[in-house]
Amino acid sequence: MNRIRLGMIGGGQGAFIGNVHRMASRLDDRYELVAGAFSSDSSRCIESARELGVDTARAYADYQTMAQREAAREDGIEVAVIVTPNHLHFDIARTMLSAGIHVICDKPLVTSVEDAVQLEALVHTSGLLFAVTYNYSGYPLVRQAREMVAAGELGTLRLVQVEYPQDWLATKAEAQGLKQAEWRTDPARAGMGGSLGDIGTHAFHLAEFVSGQQVTSLLAELDCFVEGRTLDDNAQILLRYSGGAKGSLWASQVAIGHENGLRLRVYGDKASLEWQQEDPNQLIFQPLGEPRRVLTRAGAGLYRLSAESSRLPAGHPEGFLEGFANLYREFADCVEARRAGKDRHITDTLIPAVGDGVKGVRFIEAAVTSARAGGVWQSLR
Amino acid sequence: MNRIRLGMIGGGQGAFIGNVHRMASRLDDRYELVAGAFSSDSSRCIESARELGVDTARAYADYQTMAQREAAREDGIEVAVIVTPNHLHFDIARTMLSAGIHVICDKPLVTSVEDAVQLEALVHTSGLLFAVTYNYSGYPLVRQAREMVAAGELGTLRLVQVEYPQDWLATKAEAQGLKQAEWRTDPARAGMGGSLGDIGTHAFHLAEFVSGQQVTSLLAELDCFVEGRTLDDNAQILLRYSGGAKGSLWASQVAIGHENGLRLRVYGDKASLEWQQEDPNQLIFQPLGEPRRVLTRAGAGLYRLSAESSRLPAGHPEGFLEGFANLYREFADCVEARRAGKDRHITDTLIPAVGDGVKGVRFIEAAVTSARAGGVWQSLR
Amino acid sequence: MNRIRLGMIGGGQGAFIGNVHRMASRLDDRYELVAGAFSSDSSRCIESARELGVDTARAYADYQTMAQREAAREDGIEVAVIVTPNHLHFDIARTMLSAGIHVICDKPLVTSVEDAVQLEALVHTSGLLFAVTYNYSGYPLVRQAREMVAAGELGTLRLVQVEYPQDWLATKAEAQGLKQAEWRTDPARAGMGGSLGDIGTHAFHLAEFVSGQQVTSLLAELDCFVEGRTLDDNAQILLRYSGGAKGSLWASQVAIGHENGLRLRVYGDKASLEWQQEDPNQLIFQPLGEPRRVLTRAGAGLYRLSAESSRLPAGHPEGFLEGFANLYREFADCVEARRAGKDRHITDTLIPAVGDGVKGVRFIEAAVTSARAGGVWQSLR
Amino acid sequence: MNRIRLGMIGGGQGAFIGNVHRMASRLDDRYELVAGAFSSDSSRCIESARELGVDTARAYADYQTMAQREAAREDGIEVAVIVTPNHLHFDIARTMLSAGIHVICDKPLVTSVEDAVQLEALVHTSGLLFAVTYNYSGYPLVRQAREMVAAGELGTLRLVQVEYPQDWLATKAEAQGLKQAEWRTDPARAGMGGSLGDIGTHAFHLAEFVSGQQVTSLLAELDCFVEGRTLDDNAQILLRYSGGAKGSLWASQVAIGHENGLRLRVYGDKASLEWQQEDPNQLIFQPLGEPRRVLTRAGAGLYRLSAESSRLPAGHPEGFLEGFANLYREFADCVEARRAGKDRHITDTLIPAVGDGVKGVRFIEAAVTSARAGGVWQSLR
Repeated sequence: MNRIRLGMIGGGQGAFIGNVHRMASRLDDRYELVAGAFSSDSSRCIESARELGVDTARAYADYQTMAQREAAREDGIEVAVIVTPNHLHFDIARTMLSAGIHVICDKPLVTSVEDAVQLEALVHTSGLLFAVTYNYSGYPLVRQAREMVAAGELGTLRLVQVEYPQDWLATKAEAQGLKQAEWRTDPARAGMGGSLGDIGTHAFHLAEFVSGQQVTSLLAELDCFVEGRTLDDNAQILLRYSGGAKGSLWASQVAIGHENGLRLRVYGDKASLEWQQEDPNQLIFQPLGEPRRVLTRAGAGLYRLSAESSRLPAGHPEGFLEGFANLYREFADCVEARRAGKDRHITDTLIPAVGDGVKGVRFIEAAVTSARAGGVWQSLR
Repeated sequence: MNRIRLGMIGGGQGAFIGNVHRMASRLDDRYELVAGAFSSDSSRCIESARELGVDTARAYADYQTMAQREAAREDGIEVAVIVTPNHLHFDIARTMLSAGIHVICDKPLVTSVEDAVQLEALVHTSGLLFAVTYNYSGYPLVRQAREMVAAGELGTLRLVQVEYPQDWLATKAEAQGLKQAEWRTDPARAGMGGSLGDIGTHAFHLAEFVSGQQVTSLLAELDCFVEGRTLDDNAQILLRYSGGAKGSLWASQVAIGHENGLRLRVYGDKASLEWQQEDPNQLIFQPLGEPRRVLTRAGAGLYRLSAESSRLPAGHPEGFLEGFANLYREFADCVEARRAGKDRHITDTLIPAVGDGVKGVRFIEAAVTSARAGGVWQSLR
Repeated sequence: MNRIRLGMIGGGQGAFIGNVHRMASRLDDRYELVAGAFSSDSSRCIESARELGVDTARAYADYQTMAQREAAREDGIEVAVIVTPNHLHFDIARTMLSAGIHVICDKPLVTSVEDAVQLEALVHTSGLLFAVTYNYSGYPLVRQAREMVAAGELGTLRLVQVEYPQDWLATKAEAQGLKQAEWRTDPARAGMGGSLGDIGTHAFHLAEFVSGQQVTSLLAELDCFVEGRTLDDNAQILLRYSGGAKGSLWASQVAIGHENGLRLRVYGDKASLEWQQEDPNQLIFQPLGEPRRVLTRAGAGLYRLSAESSRLPAGHPEGFLEGFANLYREFADCVEARRAGKDRHITDTLIPAVGDGVKGVRFIEAAVTSARAGGVWQSLR
Repeated sequence: MNRIRLGMIGGGQGAFIGNVHRMASRLDDRYELVAGAFSSDSSRCIESARELGVDTARAYADYQTMAQREAAREDGIEVAVIVTPNHLHFDIARTMLSAGIHVICDKPLVTSVEDAVQLEALVHTSGLLFAVTYNYSGYPLVRQAREMVAAGELGTLRLVQVEYPQDWLATKAEAQGLKQAEWRTDPARAGMGGSLGDIGTHAFHLAEFVSGQQVTSLLAELDCFVEGRTLDDNAQILLRYSGGAKGSLWASQVAIGHENGLRLRVYGDKASLEWQQEDPNQLIFQPLGEPRRVLTRAGAGLYRLSAESSRLPAGHPEGFLEGFANLYREFADCVEARRAGKDRHITDTLIPAVGDGVKGVRFIEAAVTSARAGGVWQSLR
């Protein structure tokens, strides 16, 4: 067994998402973390490396050096994981691609549509693998939902209702030293979107992923309920979809009582589906005129793809990490296919690709544009 | 004991809502049904009277005759209950008020803002009691929610999310001989609103009732998903409230899987509340930074008003009828106060008054106006 | 319409169950309450009559007088409703039967097996209608469950798990002036069983009602957790059923957190069912190897009997009163059949009959016998 | 970083629990799997090693050889993980301890009380670390529950209700080639208990773990519902606890509709708790006379121990693997303490120790004895 060599940019001590990526990468034992630019503070970077069991000689103070040195090694990293604040994604991704390194990048992709489009072009030119961790698409029952829609079990879609309420920014956490809050509420680091970028893009991706339809236009009402904040902490958006469905998207980081309340409901003319992230091991299926059915992860009546996305038997709850790890597992399949000289692309899989990242940035921009105009319809190319 | 004498217009054999009114009126034994114009078909009217134990001499083929004859009797009806299709409400109500009879009228009040305003004036002039059965406000825990908001337990409100999905019109039921569906999808009888008028107005009233704020403007997206239908069967509306809250309202009669899914969520800067009509004996209360609490009807920690709106101890489920009956009980208190010469008004109670009915009609009209203009903001006076 | 004339014994001011019987009897407008021995305190009796709209001339200080006088009137009561503490049931029931009056009696039937057997004989001899209000069997979805078992949808039954936890006696409420608690914890008035008699018998009846099997033997562990109490406030019982099923029954009035938590689960070799009284509008059906299904009251896929036991469409919650009222409605059908000279018996219906009352008393006695012997198996004839 | 070297006995291709142990051991990156006797079939063993990235030179056809050779290496395994059928646990554990290797052993410990007691003595003599994977005690909210009981938040305990229904043996799966079913229903490999040993012991451990009380006596009803099976597939047990609490335990592998339904409810005289394994991220806390509270993993109001047992923020579901991994993490702390020459014992932690394993075996034996005698009380030393 020859594990895939990972390098990480960001994700030093105390980081949330960096650790998630690491645990997800370990679950199936397909990767090993061998290098990192964990922090721009070089002593923190080295300390993080030590804690993580990474050779301190491969703990880099900056990602440029990391790209250069690792590219020069025979046993250099094959994949770079980008888990920094948003404003750094673009440069880091470009640098890694230039060095011939595959990339797994956190969302939202970058902070402007211009950068997004440019990065997409770079990815295509490079021929390298590039994933964006819209991780909720990794849950087995989200994939089941997508398959059911695609198979026509819901009939023609009419409505797509997605919401993503949280409450961790209900008070001014960014003024109390919470790092996660600081950069996410700072336009210089987060980009144009607050809740919109941080979680709205997840909801947007999930809605398109499951419905199989694209959003063609939207109308947004963005609010900033906590005083002194400049980015939205609440977004309500009406959506029109390519296949004729209508819907709404609500993202909020001030909705007290919700920890991580991503929820999707899709209604067709034959049946409907409901899935909630906080209860991810069940999927409600409601055919017209029949009793409601509760599908369970790895339970009866699932499509193969969904069953294959499970690691444990039904009744043994899987959670956030396992869903996340599904993206890592499939990315590993791609890397190994490439090692074996096969022509495998991210778009051949269910992994969110750079194009999905671009769409997310367009979504943010369109919503901001709509809201700034007072709430008018805005098309989404 | 001297029960209050009721007459009913509409509500003959096979009617749903007429029977609900009758059961609700009986629960506390404060009323007796003594007359009716149950159907415009006179033999059906008489048969209904027989079934209901009403003296057939007081079964009238038309409401005009009923108003006239009953007003002339010493033991004539004191209260008229209007449970016909919407387009008849106005004339019937006017006739009853002219005859000096109190009115309980189903919602929506009438089919145009013009009629609504005129009816409101007639009510005021008459000095009579007039209730509109936005019955969901009668549920004990809805009242608890209202009291909690009013007492400041939620702090300053930020968001009001209300939804009312149903699925009974997911197919073209009106073409299959279902009377309930026929008139509700017919603009001539239902008015401008389809799902908007039938259930959207309930959701609208509930949101204002609990939040204590008025909707000042809205933006609506109305759809008609079932082919050949002319009134909306789905409505998605963004709302702005007088106190600064924002929110959305979703009403649908094509949302497969929902029987009668009215649900309200209210978020302040201190806490939030959630209530669902299909699970009416519990109310979720979520204070910031504390575990979620589940309040139960007649359970621990309730305001007096809510406890008084219960008939059974906690754990003995109350439902739709008991909530409905609370309006009837309080209306009976008003009638008896009037009998005793006291100056009691509907607006002294929690019973929805004619003014609430007017608001509901304005809401329909504004939503239709907004949607027809392609989805633009519309103010609601 | 000629309403059935009711007299009530017990159920005066402040009573819980008396009022439940009255509301249940009013719901379908088939009865009128015309007489009562509401309290042995004659001024309270008269005051209750006044409040209830009963002619005070027919408010009797004792039930013997009531039986005698009412039997002598042409418009005398046809049905006596017994809602006193348990120790009075026997004498009252006997008196009413002797006077030719049908009886609706609260549970448990009487306080000894001897009395139970004697009363059963009296009922048979009299030819009169006699119901015992094991009211939970009136819920539409309980009836649906029974029909599904009878139709073989669960296959051969293996397990019957029933529990009925409450918490209202978790502290010594009987020492704090709570009348409901006083007599229920007093062996002189309640009989041999505490929680066993008050709620255990409900659970026992429900288990037999739905499973269609009889308990043949049991082993009981009875506890009295609150100091100074002499009757059980907690009962745990293992059960063996006539058809080979096994099971357990847990009744508790000290299980903090449960208001009225009656819950039944029945498992066969093909499927299982679950129903909870506090959420009575849904029934979980789980066929082997298929997704769980949620049946809703008046919803899709129900047996006729269950649908007919509903008054409202699906999604409009029915509760405790409606279930209770189903027994009253069917009892009314029996009375009217008798008026019409038809040979209709309680055992022709789903209404719990005197024989069910006898069984409940046998159950209490067997459980007490088992527990007193230290927890040994006891047969139940 | 110097990862702890693991060897595994059992857990070859297609195994369920072996893979769970491996994933759990990887989550925090504290272990590496370096050797294994994955299967007694030597070619399968080698193939498993290859798949798992284990040097095939360290893939042993038998555990005796493995113990001997690994003990002889400087970089030999430090910990042996035993995931074979039950009947092999004793010999393997003894062999590993003799070779100076720490042990993590799956449950139930062994197949007789005699062996259990002997093994316990060997562990004590050896001074080595020995854990039994009653993994449900690793869930953060189970630990929270234990802390709350210990802190007196429930008052004096009255009732402990634990149940563990599954349905995977509802039909004769052992006759259809399902290996997991074959050995678990075979007394020669599983021991005296069927559902009792496989899942009953989990429920038993959980009840004692959370309640802090020991079971002093029990009475069991064991059934074998599937024809031709000789070990119990259903167990209903009444329990008496050392601190005066009473309770019941139900374990079933034929309860259709339950995937892995472990559920614990603990009632004191001040409050109660409820936790369900299939919904492990919430814990219901119900103080007397107050609204029910829902505690969430990593949410508000938790004890430190519980918070420290979490890897993800609230709302990001953790599941079965994370709970399992907590035992591995704490075992790693013990191993590292030993490496550092510290005197650290399993009993200093929350990890189930050999003594807990012994208790589980005593529980099985006592239940079988009780049931064979027709259901009589049996003391548990």
